[in-house]
Amino acid sequence: MQDKITLSHGSGGQMMQNIINDIFFDIYGNSILKSGSDAANLNIDSKKIAMSTDSFVINPYFFAGADIGHLAVCGTVNDVATSGAIPKFLSLSFILEEGLPIEDLKQICRSIAKCAKEAGVEIVTGDTKVVNKGACDGLFINTCGVGIFEDPNIDFSPKNCKAQDSVIISGSLADHGISIMSTREGLHFETKINSDAAPLNGLIKSVCDACDVQKIRAFRDPTRGGLASTLNEFANVCKCDIEIEEELVPVKEQVRGVCEMLGLDVFQVANEGKMVCVCDPSIANDVVSAMRQNEYGKDACIIGRLCEANNISSPKVYVKTAFGTKRIMDMLVGEQLPRIC
Amino acid sequence: MQDKITLSHGSGGQMMQNIINDIFFDIYGNSILKSGSDAANLNIDSKKIAMSTDSFVINPYFFAGADIGHLAVCGTVNDVATSGAIPKFLSLSFILEEGLPIEDLKQICRSIAKCAKEAGVEIVTGDTKVVNKGACDGLFINTCGVGIFEDPNIDFSPKNCKAQDSVIISGSLADHGISIMSTREGLHFETKINSDAAPLNGLIKSVCDACDVQKIRAFRDPTRGGLASTLNEFANVCKCDIEIEEELVPVKEQVRGVCEMLGLDVFQVANEGKMVCVCDPSIANDVVSAMRQNEYGKDACIIGRLCEANNISSPKVYVKTAFGTKRIMDMLVGEQLPRIC
Repeated sequence: MQDKITLSHGSGGQMMQNIINDIFFDIYGNSILKSGSDAANLNIDSKKIAMSTDSFVINPYFFAGADIGHLAVCGTVNDVATSGAIPKFLSLSFILEEGLPIEDLKQICRSIAKCAKEAGVEIVTGDTKVVNKGACDGLFINTCGVGIFEDPNIDFSPKNCKAQDSVIISGSLADHGISIMSTREGLHFETKINSDAAPLNGLIKSVCDACDVQKIRAFRDPTRGGLASTLNEFANVCKCDIEIEEELVPVKEQVRGVCEMLGLDVFQVANEGKMVCVCDPSIANDVVSAMRQNEYGKDACIIGRLCEANNISSPKVYVKTAFGTKRIMDMLVGEQLPRIC
Repeated sequence: MQDKITLSHGSGGQMMQNIINDIFFDIYGNSILKSGSDAANLNIDSKKIAMSTDSFVINPYFFAGADIGHLAVCGTVNDVATSGAIPKFLSLSFILEEGLPIEDLKQICRSIAKCAKEAGVEIVTGDTKVVNKGACDGLFINTCGVGIFEDPNIDFSPKNCKAQDSVIISGSLADHGISIMSTREGLHFETKINSDAAPLNGLIKSVCDACDVQKIRAFRDPTRGGLASTLNEFANVCKCDIEIEEELVPVKEQVRGVCEMLGLDVFQVANEGKMVCVCDPSIANDVVSAMRQNEYGKDACIIGRLCEANNISSPKVYVKTAFGTKRIMDMLVGEQLPRIC
């Protein structure tokens, strides 16, 4: 282990997993935290609630299609929703840099209010700190969300995934990461690539309402580290290999172009408005149909399946290409793009 | 209103109150948030929970008597506990600066674990972001806490305070603020002044167990902005004046000396391990006795009382001196000491 924090420790890839395991799980090793879910499932007498938190440090804080405030609501709402709980309450905490234009703060606050309204969550508590000029970068936001399980029998978790299960994605990959990268690098295109940041609790609820929830294994929004991080985490937890059909994965032409130009693996680029669902193959088409009814799931499709692990001590994610070849879908190891969320 | 954020907006005083009113309450104006309590009271069917969040940006992150990790647990645990709920679950979110020594992070994590154990709360979910060198200052921490009301009839709120009620403080004022200021300014004393940061949920529980909770009006930990901010907020909410007897307020000799030397008002300096309680005068002695049973309440005492407001549209907090004179205890207006917590 290195002796200093590097940007790679925040990339959502392998090195972040290392500090989570070696420091956080080691020091706070309770079973709830160690479940490794995006949201903690908590029992309050007979009620079950879900709790999740995220800090947002994205740079720039205004970007194509959204801003840090919109992202701060979506990120936490989506993490809570992946557990199957209905997100209800949000805390909102600001770290502001001395000199931040108050009009920027107001615009971000209005964006938070708009997104919270869409997602059906209330901002119920908050905090504001101000640091000297130079001690932070504009503003950072933290949100923490609490959701309620309407159906206490719901228990979505990657550990429930099994061989033969289907892998579904709610739409096209890498829009958020490529949008931020384009803004930051000053790349201009004929059509602007917008961030996909969106609250997906409605999409998940549509799926749960339309399908037998006992056949849904897990939801996860593939943010930092992209689809590759999500699927590798799933494979490691459930001890199955995963096979993805490359030609089934929706990617916008322009996004694919930027990835090729910059040498990026589209599977490792961050998303902020996409949802992965693993489910029993018998309901896969119903999940896709339910997603497609939702405005954020119009391009939903089945992209692969789980299978028995070739080597159970080291399950792998494979990409099958249109030419019939197979390669490993690796987790991001170093950093790709710091401060993406 | 100014057009840029200044350090005064984070001081816990009047200017912070202004952005809370003019931006946050204006944009997110639901009744739970507008109650202005340190913790939100939330109904989940028949259960009542409390939720509170704080970000911690203190500089330096190691200081006499504690560190940012210890503070991050105490601050949120205390805010949840003031509502009368029993703190149970904590989220933990880090923003780390590239280059932070991993040994510092580990030490802070161990300090968090130790304090969480003492307070009886579990770290159940978390997040880690890394920003480029220079984009933050070492590390910032956010915690969000959830507590459960064992007695659903508990409803502590400054709006319940009435004329004749007693004002109690659990111990000596200003230790945290003066400790940080001394460390930062390189002041050295014969006896080191330690921060008072401590989890006070046990102290509040002792008071609730020993006294009729229907006669307890409100708890509040007087952090940023000190006792002056807490009492002025209480006075404004309940529309009473408050009179504090200066000679009854416990202040350590050395702390008083530094305040005089630096021209600080001891009532405006931050605390992190003290609790104000307002209660019916009939139980005031019982509250003091219960606090004194707790290790963090050994110097608890009654320091004043509420009375009818002289001018109900502008209630005031007064300090009565040993010489019989009376002066107004004002809220902090500008900044006193940035990044105190």
